Parts: sequence; structure tokens; C-alpha cells
Amino acid sequence: MSDPAGTRDDAFLGGRLVLRQPARGYRAGMDAVLLAAACPATPGARVLELGCGAGVALFCLGARVGGLALTGLERQAEMAALARHNAAATGTDARILCGDVAAMPEALRQERFDHVIMNPPFFAAGPAAPDPARAAARHEDTPLDVWIDAGLRRLGQGGTLTVIHRAEALDRILGALGGRAGGVGILPVAARAGGAAGRVIVQAAKGRRSPLRLLAPLVLHAADAHAGDREDLTPAAQAVLRHAAALDIKLS
Amino acid sequence: MSDPAGTRDDAFLGGRLVLRQPARGYRAGMDAVLLAAACPATPGARVLELGCGAGVALFCLGARVGGLALTGLERQAEMAALARHNAAATGTDARILCGDVAAMPEALRQERFDHVIMNPPFFAAGPAAPDPARAAARHEDTPLDVWIDAGLRRLGQGGTLTVIHRAEALDRILGALGGRAGGVGILPVAARAGGAAGRVIVQAAKGRRSPLRLLAPLVLHAADAHAGDREDLTPAAQAVLRHAAALDIKLS
Repeated sequence: MSDPAGTRDDAFLGGRLVLRQPARGYRAGMDAVLLAAACPATPGARVLELGCGAGVALFCLGARVGGLALTGLERQAEMAALARHNAAATGTDARILCGDVAAMPEALRQERFDHVIMNPPFFAAGPAAPDPARAAARHEDTPLDVWIDAGLRRLGQGGTLTVIHRAEALDRILGALGGRAGGVGILPVAARAGGAAGRVIVQAAKGRRSPLRLLAPLVLHAADAHAGDREDLTPAAQAVLRHAAALDIKLS
Repeated sequence: MSDPAGTRDDAFLGGRLVLRQPARGYRAGMDAVLLAAACPATPGARVLELGCGAGVALFCLGARVGGLALTGLERQAEMAALARHNAAATGTDARILCGDVAAMPEALRQERFDHVIMNPPFFAAGPAAPDPARAAARHEDTPLDVWIDAGLRRLGQGGTLTVIHRAEALDRILGALGGRAGGVGILPVAARAGGAAGRVIVQAAKGRRSPLRLLAPLVLHAADAHAGDREDLTPAAQAVLRHAAALDIKLS
């Protein structure tokens, strides 16, 4: 795994947060911000992110909800170091552990959390072949059901698991949840009104048995064609991405 | 199972079709029309409906696409008789078999179809307890995965299965499709823009392996509150329900 050539500072939540990320390779973006917005944590809650990278989702969540006990697990030491840097730089109290989702560190095996969030790796769709360094950084080699199983195991009863992923993974996500988490809420995320969802945010509560709900999509862009600037965002997307609003998945 | 007290004639597709249904107990409505609209059959195709009732979906499909070989399987003899009446009354060439989805008649076991459609039974959500006669007529006792398995078995390679059901059954539908059908398309059907889906139409092709797609919802009603008359329908819903337009699920 190549060491990133350098780092850069990216702004999130309308500039409220500035977080250091690798200049090359995988960088968290909109997905991490949406994931943080969808976590229903309230002050005092214990939150674990699996595969936290440089901590963008964790720190976006910490910026929205005060008094959280934030824990991140990250396989790559360089990314974990960036997450620790970002915790210090933003004054966020967060514990960052270096370890593998598929081989949960013993310290975490003893703990239960109120909320687990994750943005498991996938190859972005597109005409170009995946960048090998990026592919390694995203460690797509750990199957999605292993991620979800690991998340469910870390939750106390009634705790919520929130996942953002490509929409095409919806059946695998629901299958991995199986009967172990219920009250499932599915929020499709679509680039344009009338278009297919590119992402889904799926949330479920451990041990709950109430029915699945398929929510109206969050539409990101207002114009018919990509305008290439921020003003293209719908009011709903702006509220979340620029103003740190929550996304209410409304578990049943 | 009580014999319905009588029958009544209901209009579909803007009056293009008039079909006889039981005056009491379960009567097909909008779901059957949407199911028919979503079936991608082209002239000459062999189409099977499991649990066809009085044939509303079959005859709506026959009204939209000419030259189909239509087959319906219905467990209740009285309903099958109404479906045969409706075939004759509408001049539709359709074969209606009386039999149980969970114990497929031998004649159908020997056949493969290009398209299978189904609207498996469920108790409508609502404050009132289910009407026992209606519950019996809907034979909710056959599990959803048995319906889907029966449908997949009747398809030739590449043939499509199309299901309409309550949105909360989405995980069970996807689980039942398992790896046996792919290119899954999910069309949420919502009463109102911004609201959760009440129904889903799920379509998949037997043996296909391409990725799942989660489409933008079909929104049925335009007003914020139910207006109680037909003019409340959105243009998209009117096209399907009044003018026999197709619903394009766009399998990947």
C-alpha cells in the first residue's frame, strides 16, 4: 500500500469543519457527510464508525451533536493518524483505533455501542478502471456482509446501524441484516429528481421487528444537468451538506 | 370460504375495460393495474399470472399489448369462473386454471413462460381488523417466498418476474429472488411526493446477474391531502391508470 504523497485540507459543512485527508487516493466526500447526518445519535451516545478513514463522518456527526463518545476503527495506520490529527485539530474527543473490521480488536469486542455507522468500500462506477492504490486503500476485499455483521455485533439491543452504499448493494445490505435488525428505513439518494438512486442509506435497529419503510428519495441536484457549482444543490441537500442538518430516517 | 353474495362490474383503464368482480370480499384495484403496466411483455409473449383472481391484471395487460398468450392460475373456483367470464366478455384469449400456487398444477409444471406477474395476498394496513372472508379469499397463508419461488420456476432463462406488494415486503422479495434472478429493478409507489412508499413493484430477470436499480418513485396523488376524486392523480399515474401507459422498470 503506497504511502500517500501528501495531504490536503478539505472543508465540510459549509466550512464549519476543515479536515485533513490524503491528497491522492480515496478521499471521503458527500457520502460521509450524508452518513453522519443520518445517524440518530443524541448527546451522550456512544458511536462507533467502522472504517472511519480520516474521520470525516465521525467529525461531521460530532459537529452536529454535542457530547458524543466517538470511536473510529480504521485499518490503515496512515488514515488512522490523519483521523487523530483531525480530532485534535477540531477539538473533538474521539478514540481512533487501528484495526480490521474482519478481525475486530479485542478492546472493541468487549464494548457495545448505541450507534454504528459505516460507509463500506466499493469501486466508484465510472468509465475509468479503478486506481490500484485507491482500490487497496478502500479494501473492497472484505465482503459487505462481514462489515454489517461486525457492526451488528458491536450494538447493544435497540442500537442502530446506519450504512451508506451504492444503491445496487441494497439487496446485499438487507440480506446481511437478516432477522437481526428491524424497523429498517431505506433512504434512496438520487442525483436528480426522476432518476435512479445512486446511493442508499439503510438504517435498522438491533432486535427490532417492526416493518421496513422505503422513504422518498433525497434528491441532491436541482438542475437537469450538472451545473458544476454548489448552487446546483437542492434545498434539502444544502441543509445537510452546508448547514449540518440531520437526515431523519424515521425507523418504524 | 363464504360464497360472495354477488358480483359487480368495475371499470378500469379509463373505462376501456369493464370486469366482473365479487361485490363483497377482495376486489382487485389499482395494484393490479400497476402490475399489468409494469410487465414488459411484447406481442406474442407467454405470460402467466399467479393468483389471478378475476383477471384484472391479465386483462389490463391484454388491453395494452396485443397477441399475448395469457394464462392465469387461481385457487378459488368462483374467482376463476369470474376470470373466464371476463375473458369471454372482453374477447380476450386467456387460459384460466384453477389451482394452488403452493401445489403447481401438472399442466403448468411442463411449461415455461416469458413473463410471470403476481400480486401476492396481504392484509391491507388499516385500523380495522381484517374481514375474515376477505382474509380467506386472499389466502395470506402461502408465504411470499413460495409465491416467488413458484414464479421463478415457471420462467424460461431471461424471463421476467414482476411482483407488486406492500413496500415493507421489499426485503422478503429480494431475499426470495436470491441469486436466481438479477438485473433487479425496484419501483417505489408512493401516495404522495415526499412520503414513504406504500407499494413496491419489483422486477427481475431469471439468470441475469446485472446490478440492482432503485428507481425514482411513481407518485400517485398530486394534492397534499386526498381530494376524493380522480383529478387528484398525478399525470404519471393518470397515464397508467386511465390511459393504459406502460411503467418502464428498466432492468439493467
